Amino acid sequence: MPEDFIVTPWEVRGEVDYDKLIEKFGTQKVTDDLLKHIEKHASPLHVMLRRGLFYSHRDMNWILEQHEKGNTFYLYTGRGPSGHTTIGHLVPWILCKWLQDNFKNKFYFQLTEDEKFMFDESKTLEDTKKYAYENALDVIALGFDPSLTNIFLDTEYIHHLYPIAIKVAKRVTFSTVRAVFGFTQSNNIGSIFYTSIQAAPAFLGSVLEGKNIPCLIPCGIDQDPHFRIARDAAEHLGYYKPALLHNKLLPSLTGSDKMSASIPGSSIFTTDSEDDIKKSVQNAFTGGRVSIEEQKKLGGDPDICSVYKYYLYLFIPDDKELQDRYEECRSGNIMCGECKQHLISLVWGFLKDHQEKREKARDVLEDFMLRD
Amino acid sequence: MPEDFIVTPWEVRGEVDYDKLIEKFGTQKVTDDLLKHIEKHASPLHVMLRRGLFYSHRDMNWILEQHEKGNTFYLYTGRGPSGHTTIGHLVPWILCKWLQDNFKNKFYFQLTEDEKFMFDESKTLEDTKKYAYENALDVIALGFDPSLTNIFLDTEYIHHLYPIAIKVAKRVTFSTVRAVFGFTQSNNIGSIFYTSIQAAPAFLGSVLEGKNIPCLIPCGIDQDPHFRIARDAAEHLGYYKPALLHNKLLPSLTGSDKMSASIPGSSIFTTDSEDDIKKSVQNAFTGGRVSIEEQKKLGGDPDICSVYKYYLYLFIPDDKELQDRYEECRSGNIMCGECKQHLISLVWGFLKDHQEKREKARDVLEDFMLRD
Repeated sequence: MPEDFIVTPWEVRGEVDYDKLIEKFGTQKVTDDLLKHIEKHASPLHVMLRRGLFYSHRDMNWILEQHEKGNTFYLYTGRGPSGHTTIGHLVPWILCKWLQDNFKNKFYFQLTEDEKFMFDESKTLEDTKKYAYENALDVIALGFDPSLTNIFLDTEYIHHLYPIAIKVAKRVTFSTVRAVFGFTQSNNIGSIFYTSIQAAPAFLGSVLEGKNIPCLIPCGIDQDPHFRIARDAAEHLGYYKPALLHNKLLPSLTGSDKMSASIPGSSIFTTDSEDDIKKSVQNAFTGGRVSIEEQKKLGGDPDICSVYKYYLYLFIPDDKELQDRYEECRSGNIMCGECKQHLISLVWGFLKDHQEKREKARDVLEDFMLRD
Repeated sequence: MPEDFIVTPWEVRGEVDYDKLIEKFGTQKVTDDLLKHIEKHASPLHVMLRRGLFYSHRDMNWILEQHEKGNTFYLYTGRGPSGHTTIGHLVPWILCKWLQDNFKNKFYFQLTEDEKFMFDESKTLEDTKKYAYENALDVIALGFDPSLTNIFLDTEYIHHLYPIAIKVAKRVTFSTVRAVFGFTQSNNIGSIFYTSIQAAPAFLGSVLEGKNIPCLIPCGIDQDPHFRIARDAAEHLGYYKPALLHNKLLPSLTGSDKMSASIPGSSIFTTDSEDDIKKSVQNAFTGGRVSIEEQKKLGGDPDICSVYKYYLYLFIPDDKELQDRYEECRSGNIMCGECKQHLISLVWGFLKDHQEKREKARDVLEDFMLRD
């Protein structure tokens, strides 16, 4: 049966059916019971959990049980530095910050400049390293605790990653990466090996501390295939399988399923000016009608509107305020132009502050970088 | 056309036709003219060159021309530490020592404990690292200049190797390693990537010095496939193609084409006791006849004798002495038992001395190890 959407770590295409993805990947739904379990330790719940942006997981209950036994997990997520950071990239990082605030976790952040170099013909390693350092500023700007947070670039921390990676690699055949990622014989041998480098930080916390420590990886659902491989290898390495908490991909402003950093106007970058944001949001796909007259009469459709999704998942955490806006749209009392202006002001309010913190991050970068 | 022998970096099987191998691999024969060219700079020629143990090359004339222009090459060879060192393993190392004495080259020696771990199901990384350090002692015992010689283990020097390796890897597809090494879909992804790690030191000298330096790799002809890949990648990386000087594989004492470290008695290890050597040599395949009477009458056949090959390539460098022994055998004046005794005394004479130097090497190991 041909599928009408594709989700791999390097490509998201078509209309993603997130429920089907849970079935296909073999993950678990984030249930109300799980949310209550999390809430016991971290209250109030983060809006991205409450409203279902994080919707899938592996072994999240086990992670909480380990925490309850005093064996607290560490956090691991990362970024492939192909360019500047978008708001979509921030989603799992923001959740990590919230988790660290509540659970006091150690946090490892991997910058995979090797990946982006090997998977993109047009990029040099110098390009991707440059962006890695730019992306690191965005991580730091979110306010992580420097005493608990470790950011590293693959090529600069490879002496710790490689010995773990080759133990993973020994357990993974070409047939497996072909099946999991859709690789072909034309893939370069660096791209074929790469998944073992992304698996390594799932065990790094345990390796560095010399004991088995649970690992939780908040990440986009598109990254799950890497960690299926890591989980399969875990047993051979003698470590716990990493647990996962998956977010849906923040939709593109153009209406497609994932922000694409490479399609102009489809993404908001953390480095965007107010004007850039205006341009992107003003061109956004909405649930508006063909004319103002019709919209006043019939109302808009927030359920298909990309602007509304930004409110829902990130920018209007207050439930009453969100509900009001939803109804104002449905009833035709608010037009798309006005609504877009509101999103612009919320996004710019967030980014203006973020950009100040991002500049200050340059001075403390070395406090976060893991090198030795 | 099915081939009657197989030579890959991990397997040598059948009766190797070394001339065919030159054709198959596309290398050049070491000619008398080339030997004379080498002799202009390094006289007298090493017995392993004079007697054709080093019989094939790539770009060796160019290497000498570069030297003549004042752009002297560096040397690179290595060892996959699957166990203790055999006399066969020493062959390219001994040539490197002779080259370093004559050309004053920098010398990089790679210990590929990652390779032996990933290619051998039964070995742990701890096993192969242990043997890497044992093998390093054999390198040092040969008398290399510590100010010019750098030995490293892949996992310990990976921070310098990996950034080079991924640049190679980006240029090599699975189709290529399948064609070159005979890999299948069942190969693990570490073994598939590995060749780029072995390619890295071919450019390391240039990377570390920030300028393009010619590299000469003396090695067994079985390792040539790795460096075909390295040579193809060189242009993309902006470095010279590494040159090669290939030795035939020192034959097994059992008569087959390559010493196998895993078949007891087929190899002489540098750590062998006099008794071990006796056992191995006494069981050696020779060109002797079925009975002493017949041998006295018909004479032996040194051309097929594994004992004679040890004289030829390593243990009787004096031409007159070798010729005498050849004729004594042919004429039936010397029996195999006596001849084996002679080889035992020559090998033990060499190894007794080597083992003393090997023990002393433990104290100076750190002078040779490249870590930072």
